[in-house]
Amino acid sequence: MRHKSLKLTGCPIARSLERVGEWWSILILRDAFIGVSRFDDFQKSLGIAPNMLTRRLKALVDSGLLEKRLYSDKPARYEYVLTHKGLDFRPVLWTLIAWGNKYFAPEGESVVVVDAATGERADPVLIDRRTGRLLQAPDFTVAAGPAATERIRRRYANTARGERS
Amino acid sequence: MRHKSLKLTGCPIARSLERVGEWWSILILRDAFIGVSRFDDFQKSLGIAPNMLTRRLKALVDSGLLEKRLYSDKPARYEYVLTHKGLDFRPVLWTLIAWGNKYFAPEGESVVVVDAATGERADPVLIDRRTGRLLQAPDFTVAAGPAATERIRRRYANTARGERS
Repeated sequence: MRHKSLKLTGCPIARSLERVGEWWSILILRDAFIGVSRFDDFQKSLGIAPNMLTRRLKALVDSGLLEKRLYSDKPARYEYVLTHKGLDFRPVLWTLIAWGNKYFAPEGESVVVVDAATGERADPVLIDRRTGRLLQAPDFTVAAGPAATERIRRRYANTARGERS
Repeated sequence: MRHKSLKLTGCPIARSLERVGEWWSILILRDAFIGVSRFDDFQKSLGIAPNMLTRRLKALVDSGLLEKRLYSDKPARYEYVLTHKGLDFRPVLWTLIAWGNKYFAPEGESVVVVDAATGERADPVLIDRRTGRLLQAPDFTVAAGPAATERIRRRYANTARGERS
């Protein structure tokens, strides 16, 4: 990947992007969520070059988002299945779907989040689980956490006053 | 960018990634949300090469996520400010923060979403705004929407039965 130094920043966004910060990785995860698990199927779905796919799958396995499992002995064949950590990426994908549908679907929505039982459309929105309040600015903001470095503290010094978020 | 063909897929994730599917773009947005607006400040914050920063800022302006505004006449200087569409990317960033904090913060959380008034930590979680239910599998899933192409319909043909999501 391009900038290893991100690891040092401590920012959870930068650290997450290290694992998935690339189109292919996120699209591989997207496909994994709808049951794609085999190399050839990822390739067919994504139209990605094999060497690139190999590299991205390996990175996702190394990051613990996918697990590589033998599904055939002779010849040896593997499938790639979402781990718990990978499954927990779902809210990010669903939030992306909501944003993409809102702004980049001039012809209407092609993919939606629905109630699995009824097929009825859901309307994804973030809340604070503890208070049930909508998680939005200016009521909520980002701030330096307990493990923040001095650099991160300076960076977020003004956000908690609520001027920005 | 690398794969223009994503535009044709109709998938809202792919389309969103076209606009922000790259580390730098998302980190630029992250900084914009905490008030960074000037070229030099982005550069200092990100340690990004100037030509790369110029390119990413232009792409974000072209996609309508940032607006370029003149803030000084002589010499002409510009700042980059989030548009409404850019501001609406916030839930994606906050969902990424939650995921990053959960899995990639061994030393503790460096950045958190907080109540802007009290500083109390929020616990970001997705719900369905219409029913108030937690937006999670297997209760919810993704499915082809009204504008789905035949390809997307096939891709999501099995999800709505709730086996996968």
